[in-house]
Amino acid sequence: MIKANDPSLHSWIQIDAKSDFPIQNLPFGIFRTPDRDPRVGVAIGDYILDLCELGRRDFFELIDLDPNVFHRPYLNDFIALGKPVWRAVRNRVSELLRNDNDEISGNSNLMHALLVRQDEAELLLPVKVGNYTDFYSSMEHATNVGTMFRDPKNALLPNWKHIPIGYHGRASSIVVSGTAIHRPKGQTRAPDADTPTFGPSRLLDFELEVAFITGRETMLGQSISPNEASDYIFGLVLFNDWSARDIQTWEYVPLGPFLAKSFGSSVSPWVVTLDALEPFRVKGPVQDPKPLPYLEFTGNYNYDLNLEVLLQPDGGAENSICRSNYKFMYWNMNQQLAHQSSNGCNIQVGDMYASGTISGADKGSYGSMLELTWRGTAPIQLSDGSERQFINDGDTVIMRGFGERNGIRIGFGEVKTRILPAL
Amino acid sequence: MIKANDPSLHSWIQIDAKSDFPIQNLPFGIFRTPDRDPRVGVAIGDYILDLCELGRRDFFELIDLDPNVFHRPYLNDFIALGKPVWRAVRNRVSELLRNDNDEISGNSNLMHALLVRQDEAELLLPVKVGNYTDFYSSMEHATNVGTMFRDPKNALLPNWKHIPIGYHGRASSIVVSGTAIHRPKGQTRAPDADTPTFGPSRLLDFELEVAFITGRETMLGQSISPNEASDYIFGLVLFNDWSARDIQTWEYVPLGPFLAKSFGSSVSPWVVTLDALEPFRVKGPVQDPKPLPYLEFTGNYNYDLNLEVLLQPDGGAENSICRSNYKFMYWNMNQQLAHQSSNGCNIQVGDMYASGTISGADKGSYGSMLELTWRGTAPIQLSDGSERQFINDGDTVIMRGFGERNGIRIGFGEVKTRILPAL
Repeated sequence: MIKANDPSLHSWIQIDAKSDFPIQNLPFGIFRTPDRDPRVGVAIGDYILDLCELGRRDFFELIDLDPNVFHRPYLNDFIALGKPVWRAVRNRVSELLRNDNDEISGNSNLMHALLVRQDEAELLLPVKVGNYTDFYSSMEHATNVGTMFRDPKNALLPNWKHIPIGYHGRASSIVVSGTAIHRPKGQTRAPDADTPTFGPSRLLDFELEVAFITGRETMLGQSISPNEASDYIFGLVLFNDWSARDIQTWEYVPLGPFLAKSFGSSVSPWVVTLDALEPFRVKGPVQDPKPLPYLEFTGNYNYDLNLEVLLQPDGGAENSICRSNYKFMYWNMNQQLAHQSSNGCNIQVGDMYASGTISGADKGSYGSMLELTWRGTAPIQLSDGSERQFINDGDTVIMRGFGERNGIRIGFGEVKTRILPAL
Repeated sequence: MIKANDPSLHSWIQIDAKSDFPIQNLPFGIFRTPDRDPRVGVAIGDYILDLCELGRRDFFELIDLDPNVFHRPYLNDFIALGKPVWRAVRNRVSELLRNDNDEISGNSNLMHALLVRQDEAELLLPVKVGNYTDFYSSMEHATNVGTMFRDPKNALLPNWKHIPIGYHGRASSIVVSGTAIHRPKGQTRAPDADTPTFGPSRLLDFELEVAFITGRETMLGQSISPNEASDYIFGLVLFNDWSARDIQTWEYVPLGPFLAKSFGSSVSPWVVTLDALEPFRVKGPVQDPKPLPYLEFTGNYNYDLNLEVLLQPDGGAENSICRSNYKFMYWNMNQQLAHQSSNGCNIQVGDMYASGTISGADKGSYGSMLELTWRGTAPIQLSDGSERQFINDGDTVIMRGFGERNGIRIGFGEVKTRILPAL
């Protein structure tokens, strides 16, 4: 594992210094082209390495796997083989791409068969999501929301510092970057009205999140600790938890967000492995009061990953509107997974667990329009002269993220979604 | 369809008049035996008709399907073939089982190959649940809970009569009848305490529900009306939505129930088709105020189905503790599905949508211990002399349900779950 992350590694493929996908990253995804049906690939620079074709040519013969596992429309079957196999495959891919290896680079026919340009491929949803949980683990976000909607003096609810608060989300409507989403319709009630009306949401928002994907199951009744949780996590994606604030306000009492969220959630296509993110582990915020023993951990489980949100009006330029960092999370993902399993709830391969909106202390780091415009009272000015309180039809929201250490940048690519008018 | 429901039909299989599974029912399920790997079957009296073996012998040759669709561990692939195929298969099974048909009954070897006694088979979870929603659609239940936990004078929240309130649930922990469940552990906070503690739940409860399973998908962005919803519903099961009241009270603000529910939900193994339930359609409660147009419907979508809950102490007798009826639902399932899709959320094959606790107006019809014992203040007396406020370790909870018209009883069998101590 250490070997695949070594900053001195170089590939025989030319990779721009600003690329998210150097040889130290090697994230997994699913792609297709007119000539290749859906299959597993690994991102390297501007290219995708086709693992299905690699497997057919016996490049993984020393690893205990059926190479057909790469000829699938989702990563789930590959992930289910377990961490030793993910690591062995990533290490083997690293070896094949190193500038001192000529198993592929020495044969131009082979290079042609194995490498596909990313801009000539369609990237697909990487996993079939069986279960999706959305947490609420940024203290700054929870505080901002509590201040706006409840009591500024008691913005954080009494349970928040004891529980990594979360709720079950809708798995069916998780879509990959590039999939346009229609503005949802729904019931809303104006503040001065007695009865609700039904129509397109007027307060459409994004939420900047990171989600982890599990790669190992637990049995019903079994619980795991935060320290054990790392063995269950395959990797991470960027996650845009689209939210209709006006629908949410009217529907969410007493059972939580429902149709305000389930019209769509967008994820980035490349799953960056926990192994590739190892260099970015940092200490998280001090947790006071001390968490209950089942949430205690040793070591660092926060990750220093720069996150950015850009808003692009119809036909216009990208406007950077938020810079945040995954390290701001109060509850880390290991605690989230431990909490999820603490009641015996079984974890499955391909589950997705999103962080909740990641806001920092600065205004510029707030991870939603709700917070950035403070409920619409302070609109954002865009470079084309227009302003936004929330998201308009025709707007595209783009999220990007990466870590950087020792001159090596490990990135996620992007999750980019255009909003279409309500149907 | 009418033919398969005809009360004058009789089978060459002897069926007790009190059986849930006369020839007019023919529910679908998944079973296995030591000799038969998991596959699709139809319940008939005390037997299961093996559709996998029927298919192999070309009994479905006039129906456009690949008979391998019955050789699966879940019903999903069969259901995905669509309503015309479900109906054709049910009609063909009805024909084969009629007392004037000798295609099977005339051949004792064939009977032996095709029929399995239910008590010699293991019944499995009938569908792979991709998405699970739990609604909250009984007015009596919502009123009881609101009275106990909030304000008796404003027991129903302002949104309740406008929205079929619901929340996303956890799909992974839905298990079939007969699967024991461990008492969950979790965070709770005593009313007089400042900080929470972690341990086994002390207020473990059942919730009497009915769930419908969808058999047809919608695309993201698409909405369907209540009247269209019937074309998307395959059938119904009994559903026990296990709940830890003490965990729920502490965790559920502001994002709803989470770990209080996700440790397990139990379903009955036979999916009773909407077609078989046609005779039990009745008018539901008057909805006042009138629902918004997207929730309006014509015709009857409530169903007159008798429901019963029994509590069996460790080694003791069954005690009937609740008799309710699915017809009490304020919001019917067609409205629930229309609401679910109203924001463009996509429906998938094998989704499960539970009703919420079904309570009636009488105390004896309350569908949870919370309501039956009024938060533990009025314990239930059992026949062995013990009493219960909530569910004890070693207790078994059994739910049964059936409709009856013209002397024909269409039943669900049962969902039966034993509670084991916390791990």
